[in-house]
Amino acid sequence: MSRIPRIVILGAGYGGIVTAIRLQKELNYNEADVTLVNKHDYHYITTHLHMPAAGTDNPENARVDISKLIDEFKIDFVKGTVLQIKPQERKVVLEESTLSYDYLVVGLGGEPETFGIPGLREYAMNIRSINSVRLIREHIEYQFAKFKREPSRTDYLTFIVGGAGFTGIEFVGELADRIPELCKEFDVDPGLVKIYNIEAAPSALPGFDPELVEYGMKVLADKGVTFKIATAIKECTPDGVVLATGEVIKSSTVVWTGGIRGNHMLEEAGFETMRGRIKVDEHLRAPGHDNIYIVGDCSIVMNPEGRPYPPTAQIATQQGEVCANNLVASIRNAPLKEFKFSNKGVVASLGKGEAIGIVGSRKIKGGSAALMKKLVDMRYLYTIGGIPLVLKKGRF
Amino acid sequence: MSRIPRIVILGAGYGGIVTAIRLQKELNYNEADVTLVNKHDYHYITTHLHMPAAGTDNPENARVDISKLIDEFKIDFVKGTVLQIKPQERKVVLEESTLSYDYLVVGLGGEPETFGIPGLREYAMNIRSINSVRLIREHIEYQFAKFKREPSRTDYLTFIVGGAGFTGIEFVGELADRIPELCKEFDVDPGLVKIYNIEAAPSALPGFDPELVEYGMKVLADKGVTFKIATAIKECTPDGVVLATGEVIKSSTVVWTGGIRGNHMLEEAGFETMRGRIKVDEHLRAPGHDNIYIVGDCSIVMNPEGRPYPPTAQIATQQGEVCANNLVASIRNAPLKEFKFSNKGVVASLGKGEAIGIVGSRKIKGGSAALMKKLVDMRYLYTIGGIPLVLKKGRF
Repeated sequence: MSRIPRIVILGAGYGGIVTAIRLQKELNYNEADVTLVNKHDYHYITTHLHMPAAGTDNPENARVDISKLIDEFKIDFVKGTVLQIKPQERKVVLEESTLSYDYLVVGLGGEPETFGIPGLREYAMNIRSINSVRLIREHIEYQFAKFKREPSRTDYLTFIVGGAGFTGIEFVGELADRIPELCKEFDVDPGLVKIYNIEAAPSALPGFDPELVEYGMKVLADKGVTFKIATAIKECTPDGVVLATGEVIKSSTVVWTGGIRGNHMLEEAGFETMRGRIKVDEHLRAPGHDNIYIVGDCSIVMNPEGRPYPPTAQIATQQGEVCANNLVASIRNAPLKEFKFSNKGVVASLGKGEAIGIVGSRKIKGGSAALMKKLVDMRYLYTIGGIPLVLKKGRF
Repeated sequence: MSRIPRIVILGAGYGGIVTAIRLQKELNYNEADVTLVNKHDYHYITTHLHMPAAGTDNPENARVDISKLIDEFKIDFVKGTVLQIKPQERKVVLEESTLSYDYLVVGLGGEPETFGIPGLREYAMNIRSINSVRLIREHIEYQFAKFKREPSRTDYLTFIVGGAGFTGIEFVGELADRIPELCKEFDVDPGLVKIYNIEAAPSALPGFDPELVEYGMKVLADKGVTFKIATAIKECTPDGVVLATGEVIKSSTVVWTGGIRGNHMLEEAGFETMRGRIKVDEHLRAPGHDNIYIVGDCSIVMNPEGRPYPPTAQIATQQGEVCANNLVASIRNAPLKEFKFSNKGVVASLGKGEAIGIVGSRKIKGGSAALMKKLVDMRYLYTIGGIPLVLKKGRF
């Protein structure tokens, strides 16, 4: 008796959830047995997390119950934490159970890359999940309350953001918007608050259009952000950071947005990795494993110039579509599709009403870019949840 | 040339603000030069602080701008911190200036009485000001956020309230109401949260009607509060408390409501004090100082049985009225009035919709007591700010 193939999807981030949603549309009845595994019973919109981290939006607007996105008659959902992938045995070990698979999709997301900088792992916070951004928001508010008890401790009012990539820039934009509200709420003189954005690369938003970067930095500087570009953080301590220049900035709040690497479990499972990521084949499979697909931050896809595309929501979403297509094709013994990234453009928010971006070959900035940012967010909500989700979570 | 007498009022709490408001009504033009000194530019409603401390109400509802209460043409307001009282020189030293007075009103409020219990001063928080309750609220929320990062640390979800007097009981009532909201907001299992209310005396609300105390404790126990009555705290540590029984309760949050003593500056100024308080004469003056009035938590007034009345908002407010009357009488060389406390009753809130109290000789509980509590709050707002303040801050 032949049994139907088992597909296990690890992670309900952009890559995993789109794979699951596509599969439930494409697969016929009893064609495969699909299980989606995720640590939480919700999917979250990572590109939106800079807002609840700063406290300018409710974290609820950045998450969607998985039960609203998948059809439980077609896909099994297991809430659980993955501990180990065993490719030889075609098994995945969770905290409370073990799952067997015929096909595996790894969409476990990334982990903060600290580049070996001492103290970052221990003392810096990261913008990476609903839990982590609630921690950042509460931590920031708590510093204001503590400052009122110890008014000599201006380090409570100094906020350091390491990394001026997209996440870092978008976060300082929101934080700069939030500070006046917090000062009012806690009776704090806004002149005492300092926000530093520190970046080791020679430019903020490395690789982005220089004219737009200059515009963006001016917008943020006018809001009170102090940039330290081409300045490496040498060490993070409980009291702040030490820069490569020797300068010490005292601060009780360090948020690290300086980089993402792949999930540690991939290396542990014996895959060949670069910074924890797997360079996938043209069909998104791990080399040497025809039944294992890798999507999102755990994967590396090379651009035509032979350099990795940066890990973004956009590429992960497109991977999910192709991954689902190829899983169905594998089951039906049909030819697989090649993955080609199609860059729809990129927009970085700079806080309320301001953004910079490139859409197609057009540069946009200011209010029109901020509007475009909202449209991009809504398009994604539409992709995963249709009109109802756009109406519920899209912020008009 | 004779100059008009100078009255300096230290502190804009219940006693001080009522004295000031009465003086501005009673004094004729140029009859006295009145200065009110306060650390903040707002008065706060101490009996309401248990709500913003728990996060069940906005701290803004517990404070009123002093500029809304006093007439700047009649009373000078100085925002400043008092450092020292010099009765011999008739001067008061502030952080940034020195004031001379002919008449002094000391309404500086109390300080937490820790009864020498080690660690309470360092590791416990107090419900005593707008700043302190914002700290408690933020601290509590932060513990929930931290728990999500370290789910083994259930001490983050254990809340210890030392003292089951009025403040302690009212605070645990609000906290018990707040916990389900926080659990929902942070995705925390409510079963993991613990609230302990620990009291060294043989009963909660010592001296209060035993039937009402029993009712109140049952209401709070049903909301999840664990009482440890007749149980002294031996020590407070960064990790929780050690009880006299030897039991250790691990907790990252200890709020101490176990007692109030007078302001340390009184003893430093050479006054005779009991627990930092001055036993005033029948006209509310410090013994031996005909020109110094003491109101509120810094004063002791004996009841007919020869025991001190507990320091409450009610007695401080009544003292303010008599103090103002006697200041005017002194200036006019009229006879002074004796202070007699008139107990209008007392109501303790137990959280939303529940309270216990004694009004006149009637015991009240449940919804009617909760309504009475609101009426008491509104009556006070009316006393200091009239109808406009009741409409603005009274919660309907």
